[in-house]
Amino acid sequence: MAFEKVKRSENYSEWYNNLVKNADLAEHSAVKGCMVIKPYGYAIWENIQRQLDRRFKETGHSNAYFPLFVPKSLFEKEEKNAEGFAKECAVVTHYRLKADPDRPGRLITDPDSKLEEELVVRPTSEAIIWNTYRNWIRSYRDLPILINQWANVVRWEMRTRLFLRTAEFLWQEGHTAHATKEEALDETRKMLDVYAQFAEEWMAVPVIRGVKTENERFAGADETFCIEGMMQDGKALQMGTSHFLGQNFAKAFDVRYQTREGGLEHVWATSWGVSTRLMGALIMAHSDDEGLVLPPKLAPIHVVIVPVYKSEEELNLIADAVLPLKKTLEAAGLSVKFDDRDTQKPGFKFAEWELKGVPVRLAIGPRDLANGTVEVARRDLKTKENLPFAGIETHIQQLLNDIQKNLYQRALDFRSAKTYTVNTWEDFVSAIDVKEGFAVAHWDGSGETEEKIKELTKATIRCIPLDQHEENGTCILSGKPSKGRVVFARAY
Amino acid sequence: MAFEKVKRSENYSEWYNNLVKNADLAEHSAVKGCMVIKPYGYAIWENIQRQLDRRFKETGHSNAYFPLFVPKSLFEKEEKNAEGFAKECAVVTHYRLKADPDRPGRLITDPDSKLEEELVVRPTSEAIIWNTYRNWIRSYRDLPILINQWANVVRWEMRTRLFLRTAEFLWQEGHTAHATKEEALDETRKMLDVYAQFAEEWMAVPVIRGVKTENERFAGADETFCIEGMMQDGKALQMGTSHFLGQNFAKAFDVRYQTREGGLEHVWATSWGVSTRLMGALIMAHSDDEGLVLPPKLAPIHVVIVPVYKSEEELNLIADAVLPLKKTLEAAGLSVKFDDRDTQKPGFKFAEWELKGVPVRLAIGPRDLANGTVEVARRDLKTKENLPFAGIETHIQQLLNDIQKNLYQRALDFRSAKTYTVNTWEDFVSAIDVKEGFAVAHWDGSGETEEKIKELTKATIRCIPLDQHEENGTCILSGKPSKGRVVFARAY
Repeated sequence: MAFEKVKRSENYSEWYNNLVKNADLAEHSAVKGCMVIKPYGYAIWENIQRQLDRRFKETGHSNAYFPLFVPKSLFEKEEKNAEGFAKECAVVTHYRLKADPDRPGRLITDPDSKLEEELVVRPTSEAIIWNTYRNWIRSYRDLPILINQWANVVRWEMRTRLFLRTAEFLWQEGHTAHATKEEALDETRKMLDVYAQFAEEWMAVPVIRGVKTENERFAGADETFCIEGMMQDGKALQMGTSHFLGQNFAKAFDVRYQTREGGLEHVWATSWGVSTRLMGALIMAHSDDEGLVLPPKLAPIHVVIVPVYKSEEELNLIADAVLPLKKTLEAAGLSVKFDDRDTQKPGFKFAEWELKGVPVRLAIGPRDLANGTVEVARRDLKTKENLPFAGIETHIQQLLNDIQKNLYQRALDFRSAKTYTVNTWEDFVSAIDVKEGFAVAHWDGSGETEEKIKELTKATIRCIPLDQHEENGTCILSGKPSKGRVVFARAY
Repeated sequence: MAFEKVKRSENYSEWYNNLVKNADLAEHSAVKGCMVIKPYGYAIWENIQRQLDRRFKETGHSNAYFPLFVPKSLFEKEEKNAEGFAKECAVVTHYRLKADPDRPGRLITDPDSKLEEELVVRPTSEAIIWNTYRNWIRSYRDLPILINQWANVVRWEMRTRLFLRTAEFLWQEGHTAHATKEEALDETRKMLDVYAQFAEEWMAVPVIRGVKTENERFAGADETFCIEGMMQDGKALQMGTSHFLGQNFAKAFDVRYQTREGGLEHVWATSWGVSTRLMGALIMAHSDDEGLVLPPKLAPIHVVIVPVYKSEEELNLIADAVLPLKKTLEAAGLSVKFDDRDTQKPGFKFAEWELKGVPVRLAIGPRDLANGTVEVARRDLKTKENLPFAGIETHIQQLLNDIQKNLYQRALDFRSAKTYTVNTWEDFVSAIDVKEGFAVAHWDGSGETEEKIKELTKATIRCIPLDQHEENGTCILSGKPSKGRVVFARAY
């Protein structure tokens, strides 16, 4: 492996960049801020998509597809949303290139192809979708509308990081329309739960469910719910958001429905999304200095089998023994790789599959064959043991379950150890700056205090947790009264 | 149903537009030339995607994702490709909007955000992908690269038609890199076969496999293979293309590899794609004056069950009888809808599901319950029969197979009847213009003759069929010698 090793403890950020590159997950492209998602990285994203898509459908949603472009006049209709995204919009102004008269073989934008109205490349699709919903909604019978879209979006970014912050990214965006406020709020919460369950049960990342403060709210939302995970450097990563949009878009796009009683009311809305950012969370939550560590439920390859042999005859004997096992495991729904490349030695292969985070590795040589044993290594703990080959498939299934559980428990223990309930400014600063974790502290509820804390410590309020309990206290900075604690952290 | 009925025989084009709209497949959006794919239409597209994706993976390909934008300097590198697409490129020139100082609440493109280099919204991804492959390929060990991408692309179109020709469309594009010409040619043919098999076995549309003439070739390809289907108006629709790109992109982007023998050679390339155009083919090949007719293998709903009842008590009795059947069918992998809406009458429901092309409809009322029977209607032939309810699941499975086969056979018979082997110009014109079908005729092999025929009849050479047999003849127009027949038709 030409793997430039950087330890997490030395430089977490460089460790992450190296890992994304060396594990063949993604790379920067020739387009500033845009990434190429490589096959191995994309295979993980496909697993994420498949599970989320299944859950969306189970909860009554259908997929659809809306245009990539938003005419400027529609984009600006919901003013807060427009204001929030205006600074990062890629704008299409022309629809044709032509030969450059001065430089043969080169092209220039044809000035005669200027668009009458500029088109914004969608940074999010509320505008184009609510303009469409207007024609779909007449009466209460047309509601609810429960639609999701898998798409690419563009938000121009100056400082980018693979998966975490890129100008173009892939995501899903749910957009629902409801007759009542209650129903829309229920939907907002329901999809937050879908995200939280996915994060915990599939990604093995424990999350805090909460509400954003006004400062951190989605532009155009009345309320933004979120899930927040802790990375191994103690920073928070927002893993998904679910917005209660009130009647803001319905009013901006004049979407009203006839009620059962014959009245005319504006429609209530939600939107919710997760993106390829989840890849960043998955990588940062579990991986180690040897490379990626993947939860089995999302790993593109569950088991790799590495033969240890000297002659082709030995390889054939090993293949005869393991190929039926491979078939058995595949029949049970697992993805198995038999790495019989003759261009690389076993040690190289071990390192490569470790780097790629394959949960279980089997190694088997002539002596194992003679003894009826196999070496089984688990990626999460980097332990290995020699076990009887007969019946190993049952053990592997059990091991994959154990790894999934262990990763979650390890991440949960880590978060617990790095979450500090603090009551003084000194302890707060220490929790954020020295101990580098989450600080659970009282806050006076004002945007000014929030801003001030951010300036002083770079910590933001990640959320007001949904399980917050009422507790009288005083704000960590201002000393003003507070009714409950919120979660502060530095964040990605 | 507020379904403005237009018959195929009266106005085929209007029939198509109405059907797409009324069956809730797609609609025009506020963005000129871009469509909204509605949930029912998108569900069909998802079925198409799922099957193709499975086949791509079975044939050794992986998915990945490359940027939406192509910097102009990369776009123009392969000159033929650039020239071919320059006229239909959406161009991003700015990356920010700002408040309009003259009109409160409005936005303008911020002139200070002009990009140093314009970005083309990908009309196809060869340029950005081959620029990436340059860094991935060093030696023969890195080859082949077998990658596919599911993405949106933009080709600016003035005259658009839903699914058939839109400014933005969804597609998949395979991009492969090989050490030898033979291997690349094999890949090109292999993927053409994957497309042909999908068209015939899943879409139930028989296709002609062939090679395009130089005039009709993909810009930047050495050879374009295609599959062509016949629609019910006798026109051809190109359903998929597979391009042998030679070393054109490798040379334009300087992608070379070290051979086993230590030499340095340019890489050989292919690309291949199908798009949401397939939706248009699916609709036009099978549907009738009552609406959509879907092949069971791609139908989002296989069976709809309509209860015929007067009281809620009757409905409950029917539900008790059919819900176990629904479960049995679903366990066998079918999608079943029990339409128990109390807002619509059975006749309305029958018409609606006919319009949406559901292959099998069951209707069941109190008398059926008493007699132990059920009415089974098949969408393709519009026939119905009363059958014993017991064991109906076996019959339904058989019926779905029959419908799939029948649709294919019907389309094949139709094509056979409308395909004319002609030897005189008069018969040629009659085949195209009066009989409105495919004309299989001799052609002298020149681009000028091809152009002339197009001018005179609007017919183009759809392809030189792969199963063309050598036969001496004279060109239908020029009278010059020809070695074999090609397929002419008017086309979408």
